[in-house]
Amino acid sequence: MFRPGISDSVKPKIIVAASGKGTNFKKIVEMINDGQLNVSLECLVVDRQCGALEIAKLFGIPSYVLSKPWYQNFEEIVDKIEPHLIVLAGFMKIIPENLVEKYFPRIINIHPSLLPAFPGKDAITQAYNYGVKVTGVTIHIVDKGIDTGPIIFQKSIDVDEAWSLEELEERIHRIEHEWYWKVIRDLLSIPFEIVGRKFRWLNEEGL
Amino acid sequence: MFRPGISDSVKPKIIVAASGKGTNFKKIVEMINDGQLNVSLECLVVDRQCGALEIAKLFGIPSYVLSKPWYQNFEEIVDKIEPHLIVLAGFMKIIPENLVEKYFPRIINIHPSLLPAFPGKDAITQAYNYGVKVTGVTIHIVDKGIDTGPIIFQKSIDVDEAWSLEELEERIHRIEHEWYWKVIRDLLSIPFEIVGRKFRWLNEEGL
Repeated sequence: MFRPGISDSVKPKIIVAASGKGTNFKKIVEMINDGQLNVSLECLVVDRQCGALEIAKLFGIPSYVLSKPWYQNFEEIVDKIEPHLIVLAGFMKIIPENLVEKYFPRIINIHPSLLPAFPGKDAITQAYNYGVKVTGVTIHIVDKGIDTGPIIFQKSIDVDEAWSLEELEERIHRIEHEWYWKVIRDLLSIPFEIVGRKFRWLNEEGL
Repeated sequence: MFRPGISDSVKPKIIVAASGKGTNFKKIVEMINDGQLNVSLECLVVDRQCGALEIAKLFGIPSYVLSKPWYQNFEEIVDKIEPHLIVLAGFMKIIPENLVEKYFPRIINIHPSLLPAFPGKDAITQAYNYGVKVTGVTIHIVDKGIDTGPIIFQKSIDVDEAWSLEELEERIHRIEHEWYWKVIRDLLSIPFEIVGRKFRWLNEEGL
């Protein structure tokens, strides 16, 4: 059983890691500022120059561009901050096995498909070209594999045959923005257990 | 563009192939008897003694237990009947490539997962053990691969973490029974096209 952030006195600390535009990061920041996500966003880490940095600057959030080797730098920052949760939000690096083990189950990721379908890069394009009639979003705990960890949350969407790839992308991103911060909130306030590869929420008594 | 069964004068003919209890077969028969599925169910074919045979007997539907080699027998029956649609409903044989080509896109299959996730046998158990939070049902046109053909229809279901495997199975089967006959009805009355591996319904004008 895990209770990563529960405490009456300490606000849970999180770190966000990104590599792209940072729209999921932005949504998390907005929900914190809005008072709906009660966490301390300690910093943004990125592995390259990207839009997420601009958002961090805009909102006055400390940010780090990881220097090479990035995973050593990543580990240093995490160990200094000791976050309750490490939130990957479009972070385009594979977390090394030793760090996955060290922080499990405190690293989570969001993936734009219903895993195990369409893991890896360009998941929305993969699903679109496959011709699926249903796809969705997965939020999972990071394990040693690529997009294989225990699934915390999935949300499906029916694909309209008339949609362009861009329309599907927009709708998938909308689901990501709607749900990622809520899952972060719940992970930091509701106990859960992971049995084998099955994630399950527990009630307040841990049952 | 395909219009497999459309005709003002002839009722479309279908064949159902099964290997198990025949619950999908039974639902199809019921919807025909109920006047909601306007097709001529020519016969049931099975590759083994199974519950579906009892259902055929009960409803007075001709049935054939395929003799070895089953695919030759299958081809003989199909070529004699010339069905507009061959409906696989829990048929546990892989249709040989030459027959897939010969009848494409007139063979359809129902699969108890959201393909391409969990192809092959025991899909519901696979999904359950993986710990998915969303799964579903796929109806697809049969191509040369195993559960890889163009997807006609998918329906998702949110998985309650408290469900047993048996509860999930029951709910998946309920979705199958609710939708398979409707897709059969639509395939025999609405034009469609398959571009690459993408299936798309067309309106009455074929646009």
